[in-house]
Amino acid sequence: MNTLKDRQQDIAAMAGKVGKPVYDPANYAKDPTERQLAQQKSPKLASLEEAITRSGLKNGMTISFHHHFRGGDKVVNMVIDKLAEMGFKDLHLAASSLSDVHAPLIDHIRNGVITRISTSGLRGKLANEISHGLMKEPVIFRSHGGRGSAIATGDLHIDVAFLGAPSSDPLGNACGYSRSENAKSICGSLGYALPDARYADKVVIITDDLVAYPNTPNAISERDVDFVVVADSVGDSSKISSGAIRDTKNPRDILLAQQAAKVIINSGYFKNGFSIQTGSGGASLAAVKFLRESMIENNIVADFALGGITAHMVKLHEEGLIKRLIDVQSFDKVAAESLKNNPMHKEVSANEYASADEPGSAVHYLDIVILSALEVDVNFNVNVLVGSDGIIRGAIGGHPDTAADSALSIIVCPMLRGRIPCVVEEVTTLITPGSSVDVIVTEYGIAVNPRRPELAERLRAAGLDIVDIHDLQKRAKSVIGDADPLPFGNKVVGVVMNRDGSVMDVIRNIEE
Amino acid sequence: MNTLKDRQQDIAAMAGKVGKPVYDPANYAKDPTERQLAQQKSPKLASLEEAITRSGLKNGMTISFHHHFRGGDKVVNMVIDKLAEMGFKDLHLAASSLSDVHAPLIDHIRNGVITRISTSGLRGKLANEISHGLMKEPVIFRSHGGRGSAIATGDLHIDVAFLGAPSSDPLGNACGYSRSENAKSICGSLGYALPDARYADKVVIITDDLVAYPNTPNAISERDVDFVVVADSVGDSSKISSGAIRDTKNPRDILLAQQAAKVIINSGYFKNGFSIQTGSGGASLAAVKFLRESMIENNIVADFALGGITAHMVKLHEEGLIKRLIDVQSFDKVAAESLKNNPMHKEVSANEYASADEPGSAVHYLDIVILSALEVDVNFNVNVLVGSDGIIRGAIGGHPDTAADSALSIIVCPMLRGRIPCVVEEVTTLITPGSSVDVIVTEYGIAVNPRRPELAERLRAAGLDIVDIHDLQKRAKSVIGDADPLPFGNKVVGVVMNRDGSVMDVIRNIEE
Repeated sequence: MNTLKDRQQDIAAMAGKVGKPVYDPANYAKDPTERQLAQQKSPKLASLEEAITRSGLKNGMTISFHHHFRGGDKVVNMVIDKLAEMGFKDLHLAASSLSDVHAPLIDHIRNGVITRISTSGLRGKLANEISHGLMKEPVIFRSHGGRGSAIATGDLHIDVAFLGAPSSDPLGNACGYSRSENAKSICGSLGYALPDARYADKVVIITDDLVAYPNTPNAISERDVDFVVVADSVGDSSKISSGAIRDTKNPRDILLAQQAAKVIINSGYFKNGFSIQTGSGGASLAAVKFLRESMIENNIVADFALGGITAHMVKLHEEGLIKRLIDVQSFDKVAAESLKNNPMHKEVSANEYASADEPGSAVHYLDIVILSALEVDVNFNVNVLVGSDGIIRGAIGGHPDTAADSALSIIVCPMLRGRIPCVVEEVTTLITPGSSVDVIVTEYGIAVNPRRPELAERLRAAGLDIVDIHDLQKRAKSVIGDADPLPFGNKVVGVVMNRDGSVMDVIRNIEE
Repeated sequence: MNTLKDRQQDIAAMAGKVGKPVYDPANYAKDPTERQLAQQKSPKLASLEEAITRSGLKNGMTISFHHHFRGGDKVVNMVIDKLAEMGFKDLHLAASSLSDVHAPLIDHIRNGVITRISTSGLRGKLANEISHGLMKEPVIFRSHGGRGSAIATGDLHIDVAFLGAPSSDPLGNACGYSRSENAKSICGSLGYALPDARYADKVVIITDDLVAYPNTPNAISERDVDFVVVADSVGDSSKISSGAIRDTKNPRDILLAQQAAKVIINSGYFKNGFSIQTGSGGASLAAVKFLRESMIENNIVADFALGGITAHMVKLHEEGLIKRLIDVQSFDKVAAESLKNNPMHKEVSANEYASADEPGSAVHYLDIVILSALEVDVNFNVNVLVGSDGIIRGAIGGHPDTAADSALSIIVCPMLRGRIPCVVEEVTTLITPGSSVDVIVTEYGIAVNPRRPELAERLRAAGLDIVDIHDLQKRAKSVIGDADPLPFGNKVVGVVMNRDGSVMDVIRNIEE
């Protein structure tokens, strides 16, 4: 006979063989009543305090955040206030970036709630205090690609991620926009939150628009989410284009943008199927406008624009001049809306964008990048993190990632900002190694890295004003004179990680 | 002073502290020439043989495949032929399912190339041979949700996944359709391939349409892909609706479908915001047509349809009767095209669809599922895998997953198929436990699980013909008489894993 009873011995033998238990019907029967309740209440919905408690967060652990709302972010302060109230201490705050709005962290650092920080950048009061030695442990700075890699490899292990989302369903399918009529916020791409969602031990979605299941399309999948918290507001969308991002009206920036466009057009890389990224500086963003006309004239269509996507890029895409947009971070609301509505506008994670250790990451296929700088030096090294006063006031962002992997990296940087020389003998802090920088565009001429003689030749042939970087540095110095040495102390307040995971530089404290 | 040289000691100290090397400029400089070449040739592009060699595949390892092309699949045979030619032995083939088209595996099993198989189902000659004892090791059968869980937990570890894709860029961003003019195939959702892509040690994409980077939208990300192989054809799309899936013209199936629709309408679950899934049987697919009229009449809109998505579901979605489609597997070309063109048609992985251990998987939020069966028994147990002749001829699919987690599971199953009784005393093989089955619809009446008295009451009140399952079984037996016992041998040829990872049943060999 071959009844189930007759087969029990074989079943037990097979269970032993595959190392699994025998099926127990008592554990299986469904309870329709419970089932119906389950539909009405997701087991993941929780208050912020419940989510924190149930996440198992302990003193000393690492918590993470994304910065897609930039200056409008409300999640970091909300969560840290709650953690402080709950008595947590000695936490490691690993944000994709921090800005002016996070000044309240100063008190939490003083009180020992936060004792370590990892970030791409710091600005405002918090940055100033940290530069003056607020923290015992140095802040670890990573590029966006470097952070993605560090999370994937485990160098940066996240215990609990707190990820703000403009929409989520009760199961945690979450997104950087909302399709519901109750939408309160929009930030577009959640690219910098995706490594956290995938690799953190526990993931808490904080949303200001809880939508019906299933939220679709979604950036973060329910399967990576443990808790869903509803908040009044996760961010002020009007501020996502503030901070570093602005549409310049500065005549010098416009001049630099025009020059950068000319470099591109004559570089040899400006041809059908090219790809481009612009950094968050005003001049680099404006350069796109000047490229547009030349693209139309020469019947040139780009395969993709990468990175922080702007309204300018969206316009060119909608005009058919750029086939696809690859968006790790939406730089304004127009870009965020485009991501929501256009399937050719692709959302990518920090890893897919810029990981050095992933041969398929987008930067590897990037032709041209235009980036800004606080300082450049005679070896083409770039500093985008620390001001000429020695105080932290910027962010690494994708700067070294795109410079290293693009075919042509262009830095737009004025020789002088007021009384501050920006072409110097040695950058205050090394962020992007000169070996990965090809061209520096200033208002006093264009310097080409001696590693790229063929490029210099092409630009010179096109009548561009090619100058020696040393001459720019000397000229700046001759105008300003010798600066007093900065009052650096002996305490290391910041560590700059290279995108390959090595330690590249340190930032010392500034003494009053 | 604070030159980089002055900071070297601090940099070294910090490197020691964080356990990473000091940055070495010699490893960093970019080579523009190499860079330009890199754009033209992805390091991932390889012939099938190169990809296999470079993947590190060794005898004894586990390889995996998806079955989204069903009877039209060309990838399994292509890859196994190549592995055989290369001299591989003792491989474990872990497919999401196998069908008639995979009969060539018989020779590869005889020759020792394949010695173990894990799958959701088997059909045709291969199934017949295996039922007769072809393999030394039993085939491991899992549900779709169970396979997703097993891959995520590591119970099923995949060394190399070979995933057919109707489009991929050279970096491995791959998709179940193509937007290029050279598109050769379409299968829609790649849901069953997604766990493999995420968890396999190495992932080989095999595509018949290599498109420009970036392929977008994409189902599989480059970051999960190691190699991209271009093949003449990965599948015959005209066959994706063949096999289990057909649009029935069978009068008995139509009757069963009508009855199933009546059960739904009167179940108490048919109300605004409900959700539904239909299995691959003709009657369960046809039931959707009958529901449509009632939805329009009663002004009822469903929140989502789940699972294998069909042209019927797409039609209801486009008419506004179903808000969203959640698609783990496109059951026909209309569904596949809809997935391509409609952002409200959501692609999900097997895990997001049906994992028992994920509170957010879609089945947990499913109200109604209509499923088919080869056999049901007086305890409401269901068999969808082994024929009444003891020969394997089906697939577990999402049957036990959806039955267990839905609020209302309806099995449509004729009492008799020709001379074969389908309502029996005990199913030949236990696939879906009766404790998760609510209603069985036959051409001789509707049986309701005694665990659901309130449901029986509602259906009786609506005038439906509610019968005792034992009476159906006796009636079938009285028509057909006692069947001879099946000639089962003592060899275990198949093991049925429950979706919770336990061993639920075994299948013994059939002797001639």
